[in-house]
Amino acid sequence: MAKSKFVSESLTTMTEMIFPNDTNTLGNLMGGNLMRMMDVVGAICAQKHSNRIVVTASVDNVSFKESVPLGSVVTLQAKVTRAFNSSMEVVIDVWAENIPAQQRVSTNKAFFTFVAVDQTGRPIDVPHSLTETEEEKALYDGALRRRQLRLVLAGRLKASEATELKSFLIENGEL
Amino acid sequence: MAKSKFVSESLTTMTEMIFPNDTNTLGNLMGGNLMRMMDVVGAICAQKHSNRIVVTASVDNVSFKESVPLGSVVTLQAKVTRAFNSSMEVVIDVWAENIPAQQRVSTNKAFFTFVAVDQTGRPIDVPHSLTETEEEKALYDGALRRRQLRLVLAGRLKASEATELKSFLIENGEL
Amino acid sequence: MAKSKFVSESLTTMTEMIFPNDTNTLGNLMGGNLMRMMDVVGAICAQKHSNRIVVTASVDNVSFKESVPLGSVVTLQAKVTRAFNSSMEVVIDVWAENIPAQQRVSTNKAFFTFVAVDQTGRPIDVPHSLTETEEEKALYDGALRRRQLRLVLAGRLKASEATELKSFLIENGEL
Amino acid sequence: MAKSKFVSESLTTMTEMIFPNDTNTLGNLMGGNLMRMMDVVGAICAQKHSNRIVVTASVDNVSFKESVPLGSVVTLQAKVTRAFNSSMEVVIDVWAENIPAQQRVSTNKAFFTFVAVDQTGRPIDVPHSLTETEEEKALYDGALRRRQLRLVLAGRLKASEATELKSFLIENGEL
Amino acid sequence: MAKSKFVSESLTTMTEMIFPNDTNTLGNLMGGNLMRMMDVVGAICAQKHSNRIVVTASVDNVSFKESVPLGSVVTLQAKVTRAFNSSMEVVIDVWAENIPAQQRVSTNKAFFTFVAVDQTGRPIDVPHSLTETEEEKALYDGALRRRQLRLVLAGRLKASEATELKSFLIENGEL
Amino acid sequence: MAKSKFVSESLTTMTEMIFPNDTNTLGNLMGGNLMRMMDVVGAICAQKHSNRIVVTASVDNVSFKESVPLGSVVTLQAKVTRAFNSSMEVVIDVWAENIPAQQRVSTNKAFFTFVAVDQTGRPIDVPHSLTETEEEKALYDGALRRRQLRLVLAGRLKASEATELKSFLIENGEL
Repeated sequence: MAKSKFVSESLTTMTEMIFPNDTNTLGNLMGGNLMRMMDVVGAICAQKHSNRIVVTASVDNVSFKESVPLGSVVTLQAKVTRAFNSSMEVVIDVWAENIPAQQRVSTNKAFFTFVAVDQTGRPIDVPHSLTETEEEKALYDGALRRRQLRLVLAGRLKASEATELKSFLIENGEL
Repeated sequence: MAKSKFVSESLTTMTEMIFPNDTNTLGNLMGGNLMRMMDVVGAICAQKHSNRIVVTASVDNVSFKESVPLGSVVTLQAKVTRAFNSSMEVVIDVWAENIPAQQRVSTNKAFFTFVAVDQTGRPIDVPHSLTETEEEKALYDGALRRRQLRLVLAGRLKASEATELKSFLIENGEL
Repeated sequence: MAKSKFVSESLTTMTEMIFPNDTNTLGNLMGGNLMRMMDVVGAICAQKHSNRIVVTASVDNVSFKESVPLGSVVTLQAKVTRAFNSSMEVVIDVWAENIPAQQRVSTNKAFFTFVAVDQTGRPIDVPHSLTETEEEKALYDGALRRRQLRLVLAGRLKASEATELKSFLIENGEL
Repeated sequence: MAKSKFVSESLTTMTEMIFPNDTNTLGNLMGGNLMRMMDVVGAICAQKHSNRIVVTASVDNVSFKESVPLGSVVTLQAKVTRAFNSSMEVVIDVWAENIPAQQRVSTNKAFFTFVAVDQTGRPIDVPHSLTETEEEKALYDGALRRRQLRLVLAGRLKASEATELKSFLIENGEL
Repeated sequence: MAKSKFVSESLTTMTEMIFPNDTNTLGNLMGGNLMRMMDVVGAICAQKHSNRIVVTASVDNVSFKESVPLGSVVTLQAKVTRAFNSSMEVVIDVWAENIPAQQRVSTNKAFFTFVAVDQTGRPIDVPHSLTETEEEKALYDGALRRRQLRLVLAGRLKASEATELKSFLIENGEL
Repeated sequence: MAKSKFVSESLTTMTEMIFPNDTNTLGNLMGGNLMRMMDVVGAICAQKHSNRIVVTASVDNVSFKESVPLGSVVTLQAKVTRAFNSSMEVVIDVWAENIPAQQRVSTNKAFFTFVAVDQTGRPIDVPHSLTETEEEKALYDGALRRRQLRLVLAGRLKASEATELKSFLIENGEL
């Protein structure tokens, strides 16, 4: 069995410049190209945590609030939130900067799930993730509830059985 | 105000061959590259419905169940499910084929939301969507509830106020 | 021997958005990039008809009448016209749309020939093509004469021996 | 009016290495990618002859006789054969080399036609082409007859009126 | 005049996965592709220091000691060493990892020089660089001597006048 | 042992058009993309001289004096200057043309070193290089001194032992 690993050990930062082919008719970064970058940085992070080849299992909701113009610099940071057997949830934070204008905005935050596989593509167990900061602990705690939501959305779990998710919604006065 | 339009008028099909740079270390299509293709076909479909430039507003959960090897042919079909003021929900179905092996599998189904904008990037109203088939009607009906879930997940609506979503879950014995 | 197949079974549609790198100094799609797209959609169509790996054998005259600006949506449709032993003639029709301007023009029509090969690259027989519509029949009938012209142009057949081609030209008062 | 120019003044050589994304499932250069390279080298040659922006007007038959594997070096040479008002016929010769194996084969020869345009895209006259070698003279002489064939194939000239083309075929015992 | 800035404020990290098209015939990263990545990360770092658009002015010797196979993860770190009027010397360190094999090697260290320019492309002054660590101080001290060597190599300074460079070589028993 | 070969036998010319994705925010060719092109043309030239697979060993100083705008045509010429056992120094000259404006400037001259390797990546001897022109002889003569400078810069040779380099600097009144 794989041993435990600190979240900080697999933290991965990617910096990219937005080139013409990354943009749409308005000259802004296309959502699909940003998702491609998020998938690469997330996969590298999950590889580092597991020391394995990984494949993308799922992507949670991603929303695109800010337009990112040609020539911007995009910084993506990927961090494992929690490992479940062979799968790892990775949170990806994205900022875009117009450096000459000294503007920097947070553009996206999304959760990707990767599965570690062996050379034949079969799932294989990964190390537990160890948290050190308050933010890492909060991300760890939310991971189970996000996982239940994912299973509910995929039709693989009844909403009534998503206990973690339900108690959270009730505690927060949402249900 | 823009007039109404049939869903079938903006149906868009994209066929792609998987080239080496689209693949990961195992020789399979990377999730991020597939999301990039989905974003392009969805944007074309939303452009056709609105006759406007569109930008990606959000992507719902996408899960990757099947590995798609190098040389496969991927078919993506995008269809508007429902229009809300300036935004359109588009459903994208993806199939992958290994043609010499005569294998064809459904690999993904995802909901993207696009917003129609004018040349300055400001949202602008789009035509209502008119359904013709049972499948189109079901997609139309579910769109409001998926929209509420999106708003809840984005922290812009309390779960307790997502009335459509709640009644659906209750009716199906999920809550 | 491979069995027969309807033309409609391998009909292939590809939709592409024109990105900056596809364009020339005037901001219009370069001819060479369009030919690359035509080759991909044609190869997929021929693969579907033959259930084999295929290689491009030849391209007939292609003329570029319309300029296709950045941001246009290009739709390519490929259809097998006729199979000859291991080769298939595929007709590719191309339309370009400026969707916000609601303009759609037919930009190209070209005939590509593909050869089905086995894993070692050796030609292998393909199914006959069965026509259903008048247009498919006309394309089937013209295929032999286009093939003779191709052989004459390649110096592999004397013009005087291209009997199908000659009778067609005489019937139409062209010779 | 533009003055005359020697063919040798616009001779253009392009050398390319075949990378993974240029290849098909068998690991050989795809026809469409080679046509893209031919279009670029031909356009540069026509630009040099005309000192103008040029657009691709047409491509004559191209046949692909040889497979060109990954890692090969492809050399393309483009030469103006003859100028007609605003258009230039360019012949493109292609060789592929497997350098470690010391094999070099001629893979393609094709005729492209480019039109010189001003900044608004309108055709503009180009210099006459002056030949110096026997090969250049032969290419010049054949250009008119290839042009007639192109017009016949495009349905813009009756075969019976393609006088140059007909006399050539008769002289060579082809008709 | 621009104010001073700490070296740490513009530190830039880029992480890239090696895809098929980045590799040569042996399946290893091509030197030219690595230099392209180094140029991008260096330009982002110099942009951050100067809050200006920057252009590459020169690259010092780069040597490639290690082969970096397909699927490797490459980490590039760029740091301003010293600013001279409108130019900035940036040091770029590169590591390559085979994550499943848990191997990480330092592959390259190179010095790039960037010039900050205004929108018309004219050089414009940049902030001084302030060092905090011993390593930053050593890089700062060496920058003048590397600059002299660059000028000598470019034929813009006589070796006898490169005083900093000469005293360094003499002190180290090299001359 | 490999036999000798004339420098002219491996002379390689590459012509490229500058596309949008090759450019920076000012619309000019990025330095890193030019280095990528130089690496490819240099590798092809070294392959031709050695009839072997080659890998990039080092790049000497490259300076970028001229901006090369979008739509320019770039010509790169690579020539072996001298072979040393398994390595070859290649000089690469680059010109950029704005063809409609009839402007052509020399933009770069750089020395790359490539090593010939066998299929396992091990260095293997290459033919001597034979010079024919005065320019080739001068490049041959300078190669040893550039090699010594490279070794000094890499810390693999003491400056005091770089005899060729030192006598050259003394003869030219540089030391």
